[in-house]
Amino acid sequence: MEDVQSLSPSVSIGIDRVGVRGLKRPLLVRDRVHGMQQTVASVDLGVDLPSAFKGTHMSRFVETLEAWEGEISYQAVRHLLEKVRHCLSARRAWAHFTFSYFVNKPAPASGRPGTVHYDCRLTGELDEQGQHFLLGLDVPVMTVCPCSKAISSEGAHSQRAMVHMEICLHGFSWLEEFIEIAEGAGSSAIFSLLKREDEKFVTEQAFANPVFVEDVVRNVAQRLAAHKHVGSFSVEVESMESIHHHNAFARIEGQGAYAATGASGR
Amino acid sequence: MEDVQSLSPSVSIGIDRVGVRGLKRPLLVRDRVHGMQQTVASVDLGVDLPSAFKGTHMSRFVETLEAWEGEISYQAVRHLLEKVRHCLSARRAWAHFTFSYFVNKPAPASGRPGTVHYDCRLTGELDEQGQHFLLGLDVPVMTVCPCSKAISSEGAHSQRAMVHMEICLHGFSWLEEFIEIAEGAGSSAIFSLLKREDEKFVTEQAFANPVFVEDVVRNVAQRLAAHKHVGSFSVEVESMESIHHHNAFARIEGQGAYAATGASGR
Amino acid sequence: MEDVQSLSPSVSIGIDRVGVRGLKRPLLVRDRVHGMQQTVASVDLGVDLPSAFKGTHMSRFVETLEAWEGEISYQAVRHLLEKVRHCLSARRAWAHFTFSYFVNKPAPASGRPGTVHYDCRLTGELDEQGQHFLLGLDVPVMTVCPCSKAISSEGAHSQRAMVHMEICLHGFSWLEEFIEIAEGAGSSAIFSLLKREDEKFVTEQAFANPVFVEDVVRNVAQRLAAHKHVGSFSVEVESMESIHHHNAFARIEGQGAYAATGASGR
Amino acid sequence: MEDVQSLSPSVSIGIDRVGVRGLKRPLLVRDRVHGMQQTVASVDLGVDLPSAFKGTHMSRFVETLEAWEGEISYQAVRHLLEKVRHCLSARRAWAHFTFSYFVNKPAPASGRPGTVHYDCRLTGELDEQGQHFLLGLDVPVMTVCPCSKAISSEGAHSQRAMVHMEICLHGFSWLEEFIEIAEGAGSSAIFSLLKREDEKFVTEQAFANPVFVEDVVRNVAQRLAAHKHVGSFSVEVESMESIHHHNAFARIEGQGAYAATGASGR
Repeated sequence: MEDVQSLSPSVSIGIDRVGVRGLKRPLLVRDRVHGMQQTVASVDLGVDLPSAFKGTHMSRFVETLEAWEGEISYQAVRHLLEKVRHCLSARRAWAHFTFSYFVNKPAPASGRPGTVHYDCRLTGELDEQGQHFLLGLDVPVMTVCPCSKAISSEGAHSQRAMVHMEICLHGFSWLEEFIEIAEGAGSSAIFSLLKREDEKFVTEQAFANPVFVEDVVRNVAQRLAAHKHVGSFSVEVESMESIHHHNAFARIEGQGAYAATGASGR
Repeated sequence: MEDVQSLSPSVSIGIDRVGVRGLKRPLLVRDRVHGMQQTVASVDLGVDLPSAFKGTHMSRFVETLEAWEGEISYQAVRHLLEKVRHCLSARRAWAHFTFSYFVNKPAPASGRPGTVHYDCRLTGELDEQGQHFLLGLDVPVMTVCPCSKAISSEGAHSQRAMVHMEICLHGFSWLEEFIEIAEGAGSSAIFSLLKREDEKFVTEQAFANPVFVEDVVRNVAQRLAAHKHVGSFSVEVESMESIHHHNAFARIEGQGAYAATGASGR
Repeated sequence: MEDVQSLSPSVSIGIDRVGVRGLKRPLLVRDRVHGMQQTVASVDLGVDLPSAFKGTHMSRFVETLEAWEGEISYQAVRHLLEKVRHCLSARRAWAHFTFSYFVNKPAPASGRPGTVHYDCRLTGELDEQGQHFLLGLDVPVMTVCPCSKAISSEGAHSQRAMVHMEICLHGFSWLEEFIEIAEGAGSSAIFSLLKREDEKFVTEQAFANPVFVEDVVRNVAQRLAAHKHVGSFSVEVESMESIHHHNAFARIEGQGAYAATGASGR
Repeated sequence: MEDVQSLSPSVSIGIDRVGVRGLKRPLLVRDRVHGMQQTVASVDLGVDLPSAFKGTHMSRFVETLEAWEGEISYQAVRHLLEKVRHCLSARRAWAHFTFSYFVNKPAPASGRPGTVHYDCRLTGELDEQGQHFLLGLDVPVMTVCPCSKAISSEGAHSQRAMVHMEICLHGFSWLEEFIEIAEGAGSSAIFSLLKREDEKFVTEQAFANPVFVEDVVRNVAQRLAAHKHVGSFSVEVESMESIHHHNAFARIEGQGAYAATGASGR
């Protein structure tokens, strides 16, 4: 049968990235406590396409993914990217994973266990020069408003805020390292299971430590900047203000300690 | 050209509803203060289809909508439903609108104006027996947790909660009537514009009036039950707990004063 | 510490359902081929709350879920519901799971394997009278338009359509049974991996079998109505029309063979 | 009352952008046919915050927006940005609008009118050096697969595909110019209202002009590159493949004719 994809295109412009989006499957992720954990990921795969070819071969992305061992780790993703590059005869291969990561977090006073999920993104890109790794992580925290607390005779409004991090990683790091950085930056971490003594603990801790979104984003940026495996990063905090229908946000783009060492590229 | 739609279907089962979904357009809505306001709605239209016909005529829904005067009111929607019934030769016509409604709300202390939006849904259905009107409305409120307040030495967690109402309407009522019912049921209403004196006011008012989602849903249900134009209704409150990654919710299904009068049907 | 939840509410109305929403965790699901498969579910849990109590005890839902074995099956969900009823001292317990289910589907000509995901919902409710089970399933299919085919000198527009089923289940059935019912109702099933010979097969099969959304919804309704474990059901088909920015939909509510046998209730 | 925002922060890092997100309101947009049209926008506003200040003054964003004339045009947005910069004492001001734009498009054979909506984004940024304008636009088109057509004895799969453009604009251009560029790049444009003769026309035109997502993205890129007001741009095409549950995508980043003239910056 005719290989239409290999014809010359009518417009000969190179394509930066072409591929498939939204393939879902069960995958393993590295877990600091248990070594591995099971999750489900949505997977996108792509390659560059030179100006001389009309189309890529979409089915080869799916074949490569089917044959892959299915583990979200530096080595396994690199292996997938190498296979994609090879099977698609491409210069650059790219993979993007969206998944939930689960941490069993003891309640702060009673110590009772409760599973919390964190939305994660992992992007890998491989070309002749090497491999890029970009980690995305969304961590909910609680914020108590310092202004509301200072001016009110009682109380202060609080809300759930989301810390969104995008990090160029240059060396293995546990997801938990970045979860802890974000959770340490709000008025309090949040939990799945809080008995009465825990709710008292969290409320009092949070009110003793009021922060604006500006404080949270700076706290996270300062700690990411000191992390030895972090290159360039961005962090954005968005709080679902309990007194408004709209949200407040703050964003910092910065460089981690890896970038500061002048380490070359990847 | 062949009219495939009018052929007999291979499976002769009547279809409860068939039509189009997701047509967007600018529309007017009745506004208590200004008479009318401009918004944008997503529109779905449908009819029943007897077992003898293979297909409906989808283009006629779009034609009817194009020719319609475009105002979300009892009279105008009834007119649309009559046209749809007629053009599609149907027994039953159905229309569903999703739109934002805007209220200019003065801040509680400074009185400065700020526009708040509310997500609304209006569903109309018309058959030989008459017309049904179902109003859906999402109203954000602030809740301060009574348990957290009672057990903590300082503060209490608060959050944005959403009041979702679905109401069978039997008589004209302003959207503002139901917005006010919901806003009066939380620890405080929420606002777009709050200067420092307003933030103090809202914080103190909310802390003087702590409520669970259970309290909010009961407060709303009690007031809807007393409304003379309300037939059956459901209300669900969902709060984006600031201490958790998950939400809390509570739901009541009830009957308004219209239903209680034993008024016959529609 | 004070048990605020056990106080009397200021408005003494019973609450139909109160609980938690959006707890995510890894769970097992029964799989026709492998016995079990791993997935991730979003879990909601609720109970009724009598008019005499101000609040439910939200942390007990999380505790019960943490202690649960974590398997989406009739027996395991019943066990969870019994535990929730007991721990919350409730008359009625309710659980809702949203998850992806994975099927390895061979391509129709080459036979090469490709994983397809299906979005599923399982709702269980338990009270003194017994347990309800409601299964929700979204199955994508391909539709080729019979009208476009009949009137055009060449071709016909086709598109992805989604079959949404909500089924009251009265007896164990594999998810695959309902996936197959939906996939047999369109112009063609869809696949993850299609080599050239498969794409030819799917295209030709689909064009030999053009269907409207009305045909698809009737085909599914007819087969669900004949299924011995199906009580009441609804099926809605929505097609992402390739010639429009809006969608077409059709919906049937019906009764399966279980309901027809006059089986009493549950 | 205490001005907590003006205190020194504990971490003295400058914040790239801080502000409010998700304020909705009715706005006017420039329209090539009618001069102006009414729509609803979601608005985000932000400024930079120097390292010496703990917080920005969130209420001033809302005040500035309330006082603004509410029209999405170069002049009016510039005016808003100047006001935001001034009121917040900022070096940089930023505004982002998300809205639907409506075009009345005659059917291709019958000429009957039908309203189509397009999702748009407009971002403006103003600092000492001047103003940036970034336009985002999503345009649905129909694609017929050239491979499926070449290898099948009859038919070819088709689907709705979305053309996403992000364009640095350097000079006034109508939204319609970019809508037309995208609609000319697929197998056929799509319409809201198609009578039988129109459906025949669209089907035949689309089948005479089969394209991959790779073809669409190249066609758009070529035309954007030739537009005299376009600086840097990206275009991504994503097609909801009717034979798969996943999508195909292709992306090109390029430079328009404005950039090529060596025009300095903005």
